[in-house]
Amino acid sequence: MTEREAVLEANRAFYAAFASGDYAAMETVWARSVAVCIHPGWPVISGRHAVMQSWQAILRSPPPVICEDAVCHVMGEVALVTCTERIEQVTLSVTNLFTSEGGVWRMTHHHAGHNLDAIEEADDGSGDDTPGPGMIH
Amino acid sequence: MTEREAVLEANRAFYAAFASGDYAAMETVWARSVAVCIHPGWPVISGRHAVMQSWQAILRSPPPVICEDAVCHVMGEVALVTCTERIEQVTLSVTNLFTSEGGVWRMTHHHAGHNLDAIEEADDGSGDDTPGPGMIH
Repeated sequence: MTEREAVLEANRAFYAAFASGDYAAMETVWARSVAVCIHPGWPVISGRHAVMQSWQAILRSPPPVICEDAVCHVMGEVALVTCTERIEQVTLSVTNLFTSEGGVWRMTHHHAGHNLDAIEEADDGSGDDTPGPGMIH
Repeated sequence: MTEREAVLEANRAFYAAFASGDYAAMETVWARSVAVCIHPGWPVISGRHAVMQSWQAILRSPPPVICEDAVCHVMGEVALVTCTERIEQVTLSVTNLFTSEGGVWRMTHHHAGHNLDAIEEADDGSGDDTPGPGMIH
């Protein structure tokens, strides 16, 4: 297995834990060193304890998340994965960062952000299609 | 200057280029190797050519962006910076990733995502405070 394949396998393990609400597996996925997380619409969460607390709350009602279009760039001891999350009708653009800890790729950062198209699709039909803050850049 | 300080200086150079609409400076900021970008509400943009094209369009009308609360983690040849962007009344949670190219820290990935609180603050007063897609996780 190449490093790239190993990273993509770690990315799959993250989504398997996420979709099944398996907190123990999610604990295994995350790095022991640096752990940072930005859930959609949330501020930055820093440190393994705070990040795992956030996942504990989220995994009580795990969403039917599907990961698509994962692309991996290995840069030494760190690997960047970008992908798309689909949760029912919602689409999110995602950054997942992995670090090699003792030869095992573990998640060191997760950032999922709204896809504005998905927000517009979920619009209540009021006809107000004023661009959201995301159109600023 | 420590590596951490050098990364934070590169992060400041990014926001200086962004706020002033200086495309030449933005070209210097970005890595020659891996370049990936997720603008708020956008899908993933991959490759230096496509990423720089997106910035060329954005910098024609540069927003009054301010970077706050930058925190840096150096992990070998890659460094993770998280921060908050404020653009007038809008708040974004941000991932900036840097890679060392010939001893110079350059941006290899930028991901800015909506802060849901900011979206709610920008609400049109209709009273519809149904949680957005971001509340899913």
